[in-house]
Amino acid sequence: MKLLAYEVDKRSFLGVLNEDETWVYPVSAAGMEYRSMKDLIREAGPSEMEMLDYISKKMPGDVTGAASVEEIKVVSPIAEPDQDIICLGINYMDHAKESARFKKEEFSKPEKAIYFSKRVNRTNDPDGIIPAHKNLTNQLDYEAELAVIIKKDAKDVKPGEVKDYIFGYTIMNDVSAREVQTEHKQWYFGKSLDGFTPLGPCIMTADSTAFPPVLKIQSKVNGELRQNSNTGLFIHGIEEVICELTQGMTLKAGTIIATGTPAGVGMGFVPPKFLETGDAVECIIEGIGTLRNTVGE
Amino acid sequence: MKLLAYEVDKRSFLGVLNEDETWVYPVSAAGMEYRSMKDLIREAGPSEMEMLDYISKKMPGDVTGAASVEEIKVVSPIAEPDQDIICLGINYMDHAKESARFKKEEFSKPEKAIYFSKRVNRTNDPDGIIPAHKNLTNQLDYEAELAVIIKKDAKDVKPGEVKDYIFGYTIMNDVSAREVQTEHKQWYFGKSLDGFTPLGPCIMTADSTAFPPVLKIQSKVNGELRQNSNTGLFIHGIEEVICELTQGMTLKAGTIIATGTPAGVGMGFVPPKFLETGDAVECIIEGIGTLRNTVGE
Repeated sequence: MKLLAYEVDKRSFLGVLNEDETWVYPVSAAGMEYRSMKDLIREAGPSEMEMLDYISKKMPGDVTGAASVEEIKVVSPIAEPDQDIICLGINYMDHAKESARFKKEEFSKPEKAIYFSKRVNRTNDPDGIIPAHKNLTNQLDYEAELAVIIKKDAKDVKPGEVKDYIFGYTIMNDVSAREVQTEHKQWYFGKSLDGFTPLGPCIMTADSTAFPPVLKIQSKVNGELRQNSNTGLFIHGIEEVICELTQGMTLKAGTIIATGTPAGVGMGFVPPKFLETGDAVECIIEGIGTLRNTVGE
Repeated sequence: MKLLAYEVDKRSFLGVLNEDETWVYPVSAAGMEYRSMKDLIREAGPSEMEMLDYISKKMPGDVTGAASVEEIKVVSPIAEPDQDIICLGINYMDHAKESARFKKEEFSKPEKAIYFSKRVNRTNDPDGIIPAHKNLTNQLDYEAELAVIIKKDAKDVKPGEVKDYIFGYTIMNDVSAREVQTEHKQWYFGKSLDGFTPLGPCIMTADSTAFPPVLKIQSKVNGELRQNSNTGLFIHGIEEVICELTQGMTLKAGTIIATGTPAGVGMGFVPPKFLETGDAVECIIEGIGTLRNTVGE
């Protein structure tokens, strides 16, 4: 099941896609009145999720408020995350190698997961503009990532239990200003510029795929395939990461964890292929969809 | 003027200290009904701040709801920050040296400010317990820091304007699990464990001190002086930091920026003096007060 946030005639809705993904049904059709996806994530119980699944299988004519996907504007599923996004760095081996080469560091397999965070006042909508921040960077880069959304407050989670804490998955483009990221030693600033967090286009609920998810992940710039990997290739898997973090941190419901990016980012090419104004960037994950954004001025 | 959050008979209040700091007056005595300090920071205008200053000069008998500081429980001024705390790393030269020695790195002056963030679901109250997280760390450490609180959304701030964006200052203990901080390369996880952010005891409003603030900063463990420096010694000052960050990031009202810690943290000693269960840690900043916490199990 795929949930999404969308607008029709400037009015905002939460909804569920129907089976062939041609129509979206508002959650109100399942008797729900959540103000935001954050509330739905925190508050919807199993029977409500079943009800959403049930209506997703109906015919559009049988659902009040059904809208064709042609007539809606899809927006970020979580416009204003409650907290900064937790990110994994260097979590695919091939990206570990290209990153070491770019930074002129010796390559070594990261024995421990690298965690950092990304400030986000507001996530970027699908089809939204990524500001180029030319006053700060000449090395604007993209990173297609699978983002995990936590369903309920998580502390001391044991390996077999991790799946129960996951609400679903979406796509994040971990946009990065490379020289800002590296010059300041810690990556935070170069990852946290306004508009650097495109998210979407939808949330695929956890029950819609295997756990851990094994999904093709790609990115394209102006149609050229750049990244092409699979989320089965994480160095530090979702289970390991959530167990490790929750040994010391309570991950609150709604927490977003971005799981790192594979090889093929702009800095990975010789010479590098950084983003330019007007470039169209697509991040694609099998089963979730395509998150497309354009680089602005 | 000093603002604080406190409890009397389990009821929560926001208040202002009177001139000799023996009484606290609830903000309701100035006609205000803010639900939290976050709301007060965002919403109180200049005339309201003047009214608070005005009542702070009254005699306790003339103020409805006045409470002796003896009878209140001071709690964190901002219990649940809206976003992670932005931190400066290695921002005093003497601490840069002790840190390089501990990490067996070559010492070099940080040319660019080091920014990272600290997850905080809930800040620790003054006199609260710092969890020892013995399952994760044998190197629990303290860091006394001046924390700057942003008053209004800040973007593209110019040097001369920075003061206008600052609501006030408080004390933060940037509690750190050293081996977690270093083993995971990026510092985020080792800084973000539950209970690692004691904050308080009060907020000193920006107009109460010079800008930039030149204030003695100290820490003590079980009464032994450990850190002893001055906020005038920042490598990267508040003006520089806020101008730099806001070139690319909008700092929202209520944002907390911790400005780094001077020499004398546990890892700075040979052999190191890490925190143990039962230790009393005090972080002291001239004009603000003492933030005292005890290390738990």
